[in-house]
Amino acid sequence: MYKVDLNSDLGESFGRYTLGMDEKIIPLISSANIACGFHASDPVVMMESVSRTKAAGIRIGAHPGFPDLMGFGRRNMAVSPAEAKAYTLYQISALGGMCQAQGMKLQHVKPHGALYNMAAKDYELSLAICEAIKEYDPELIVMGLSGSETIRAAKDCGLKAASEVFADRGYEEDGSLVNRRKEGAFIRDEDEAIARVIRMVKEGKVTAVTGQDIDIQADSVCVHGDGEKALLFVEKIRTALKAEGIEIAPLSEICR
Amino acid sequence: MYKVDLNSDLGESFGRYTLGMDEKIIPLISSANIACGFHASDPVVMMESVSRTKAAGIRIGAHPGFPDLMGFGRRNMAVSPAEAKAYTLYQISALGGMCQAQGMKLQHVKPHGALYNMAAKDYELSLAICEAIKEYDPELIVMGLSGSETIRAAKDCGLKAASEVFADRGYEEDGSLVNRRKEGAFIRDEDEAIARVIRMVKEGKVTAVTGQDIDIQADSVCVHGDGEKALLFVEKIRTALKAEGIEIAPLSEICR
Amino acid sequence: MYKVDLNSDLGESFGRYTLGMDEKIIPLISSANIACGFHASDPVVMMESVSRTKAAGIRIGAHPGFPDLMGFGRRNMAVSPAEAKAYTLYQISALGGMCQAQGMKLQHVKPHGALYNMAAKDYELSLAICEAIKEYDPELIVMGLSGSETIRAAKDCGLKAASEVFADRGYEEDGSLVNRRKEGAFIRDEDEAIARVIRMVKEGKVTAVTGQDIDIQADSVCVHGDGEKALLFVEKIRTALKAEGIEIAPLSEICR
Amino acid sequence: MYKVDLNSDLGESFGRYTLGMDEKIIPLISSANIACGFHASDPVVMMESVSRTKAAGIRIGAHPGFPDLMGFGRRNMAVSPAEAKAYTLYQISALGGMCQAQGMKLQHVKPHGALYNMAAKDYELSLAICEAIKEYDPELIVMGLSGSETIRAAKDCGLKAASEVFADRGYEEDGSLVNRRKEGAFIRDEDEAIARVIRMVKEGKVTAVTGQDIDIQADSVCVHGDGEKALLFVEKIRTALKAEGIEIAPLSEICR
Repeated sequence: MYKVDLNSDLGESFGRYTLGMDEKIIPLISSANIACGFHASDPVVMMESVSRTKAAGIRIGAHPGFPDLMGFGRRNMAVSPAEAKAYTLYQISALGGMCQAQGMKLQHVKPHGALYNMAAKDYELSLAICEAIKEYDPELIVMGLSGSETIRAAKDCGLKAASEVFADRGYEEDGSLVNRRKEGAFIRDEDEAIARVIRMVKEGKVTAVTGQDIDIQADSVCVHGDGEKALLFVEKIRTALKAEGIEIAPLSEICR
Repeated sequence: MYKVDLNSDLGESFGRYTLGMDEKIIPLISSANIACGFHASDPVVMMESVSRTKAAGIRIGAHPGFPDLMGFGRRNMAVSPAEAKAYTLYQISALGGMCQAQGMKLQHVKPHGALYNMAAKDYELSLAICEAIKEYDPELIVMGLSGSETIRAAKDCGLKAASEVFADRGYEEDGSLVNRRKEGAFIRDEDEAIARVIRMVKEGKVTAVTGQDIDIQADSVCVHGDGEKALLFVEKIRTALKAEGIEIAPLSEICR
Repeated sequence: MYKVDLNSDLGESFGRYTLGMDEKIIPLISSANIACGFHASDPVVMMESVSRTKAAGIRIGAHPGFPDLMGFGRRNMAVSPAEAKAYTLYQISALGGMCQAQGMKLQHVKPHGALYNMAAKDYELSLAICEAIKEYDPELIVMGLSGSETIRAAKDCGLKAASEVFADRGYEEDGSLVNRRKEGAFIRDEDEAIARVIRMVKEGKVTAVTGQDIDIQADSVCVHGDGEKALLFVEKIRTALKAEGIEIAPLSEICR
Repeated sequence: MYKVDLNSDLGESFGRYTLGMDEKIIPLISSANIACGFHASDPVVMMESVSRTKAAGIRIGAHPGFPDLMGFGRRNMAVSPAEAKAYTLYQISALGGMCQAQGMKLQHVKPHGALYNMAAKDYELSLAICEAIKEYDPELIVMGLSGSETIRAAKDCGLKAASEVFADRGYEEDGSLVNRRKEGAFIRDEDEAIARVIRMVKEGKVTAVTGQDIDIQADSVCVHGDGEKALLFVEKIRTALKAEGIEIAPLSEICR
């Protein structure tokens, strides 16, 4: 039977600032990526996010990012591998301890934003992140872009790796995402997006922006909860997946 | 046989900024309080501090502080108990995870600076801190000012509590420290300071600023490593303690 | 003819986080208090806030706060007068330079949140803030709680002072605000709130929570733009003030 | 008569952390680049730095950097031109206001660290920085790497530009600095370094790492005050410049 995880970023509020519709997206996903206080969130928000996710029976992943709250971790920063390792270890430890305090355990780690994108193309950076993860807990699953250096580094470290795909993004022939500023970057038609996801899960194939079919692994699909339209799409994709006999399951049941 | 712990604050450097003489004080103490990135330190410094302390065979404690790097955590901040709990849990988790990554375990938690001083007088604040500690790991020892609300809250939570004394500070009759701006705040004579520590350990007594003898418990003595003079004093106190048959031992051997 | 200023806090967004309904409240007020990057805002938001306020023909004030983004500047912090002076000078300079770059000039300075409340009761703290203001530009108007130490310090410094009143808050007999946790802290009836403001402007009197009438000066009324209900109240108070022949005018026309 | 400016970075302490030997380097330079609170410094340090520099009769420049205190502004960050403009305007305004409060005026702006290096090669980024400078005060001098995009952008904006040279660094044939990891990056021989500076000032020439002579403009020489050796070198270069009839003068006397 086919299985796939649906993951979404959560817990991105900070102090007086509220972001996202966490309560609405939580029931629709199987894994949550919770911000750890560098690019977003603060300790109070993190504790609440762990409670809320636990209450819904959703598995928790750490979502470490760059120390750039002003830029929401979306700006490339030239950190050294040693810095990336330390920042990752700090953030997953902080969230991991909060899970532990509530009788939970982290399921996975997904780098956030610019750290995710830089690591996808940089083996050394990915390795630094994976070393932090392995030293903290070798049972953790590393989530990265399907076909990326992050997946390669995770496997080289002996860690379980979860390949993530995007429903609404175009792919280059090499499996990387089409740059947001180029044509074909986005799949705007929802039905097409869903059909692509189903094919990625069932056949391990997707049609690149060039028209060429390429191999792709889909352990988890990234979905968003930052608006009514996004939430409706998640419900639509859930219905379609089930209709196709694809079970929505947490990463821990997919990457063994 | 008498035993006492010597503790010192470590790992207070930040980025390009170096603070303290960690390598020189480490061999002279039995427990290290390592900053956790709020009032001082950063993830790279924390990893190094854990490595260095581990290499010396010294036990590690978390030293959580206020989120006030600019004020080094020394300025009172009116945080709520819920905030104090979340900040403490975040910081001890972050350092605890770094210890775990190096095969170590936290021994104790000592609040830093203004958080330490405010908690000493505020039972509710101390309780919030202790709840975070207990939820993270009920085996952790809470270090607080001898006779303070922190010690009381730790015991009420069922946590082990370590009473800290200061060699160079005067005490009021109620066991609190004489305000730094008042006469009698500091014991400037080193021999007198050492004699007082020995009496605190052996007899559980100290002479308050009023001349009255008061009860005091001395599980750990706070020492400093921020200058040659401070280091010499630590060596002097070590020699004196040994000459008096007082063994210097980590908190874990004292607070069982 | 009677005149009063309507002021509101603006420009409190930060990076990816949006706060407030600036575009809707701007047309309804005569003076804007713009956050300066410590308790809220960032340089990009500040430039936009200056542009937007300038475009609407509204006068700009700096709204300096504590360096506590996580607490939105609402938590008391034990800063020294020297620190308060430096923090104020830094923040008003930063915003003042942005005004200068757009051919504008600051009209006033209103301390934010906990800094405002602490200064209201602390002459020394108020004096430090006023010194920063005076050294930066002696023509600036200091806005503070009517009857507060801030107003006293501003006058002692030879600065123009604007006394602020609150439509929706109860007053103690000494002119201070009733603590938010005590009965009588809030005037929930909108018509009563408006009637009180009109009396404060015209008669310089308000009924304290004890039932006693007290003197109060109303140069500016604080209004909020953080919700549809708040915006409707501002429109209501504008209509009522005009009906009573009270002109809404910027501080610069009131405090000469 | 030949003239050259000697500039050094100052005011890089932060809170409890002290950096640099400001009091010793100040008497040896003609222009000071003062940090503005993003990559280093805080408002208290800034006020002190302005006072100290003013007392010594040295001209002040703003030294804006990336919002990366943990990395001391030395890590490349992918900020947009709009962000770079806003960050620059904020920082020069903050320091400019502190100068104004002490009856001083900024003389120049020199981007710091990674911002300096990125801008040197990126016309669009340099333009954004220069626009901020021009809008704040069109009389300010922009200091940038000799031959860089920063100098080109400053001139295109109609701003005065000061070309900076480095005594201890090798140059490529295109006028850029030899990468720190490549051979020839550093001129380790002090006499050779001084001879090169004298030739840059008098002849406008320097020998590139390839052996080829290239054109270079030397309005200001960057010197360091972060150690006894560095201070001795500054004294040595001062003596040598005077012996060669080269007057040490602030930028304002050089870039008219």
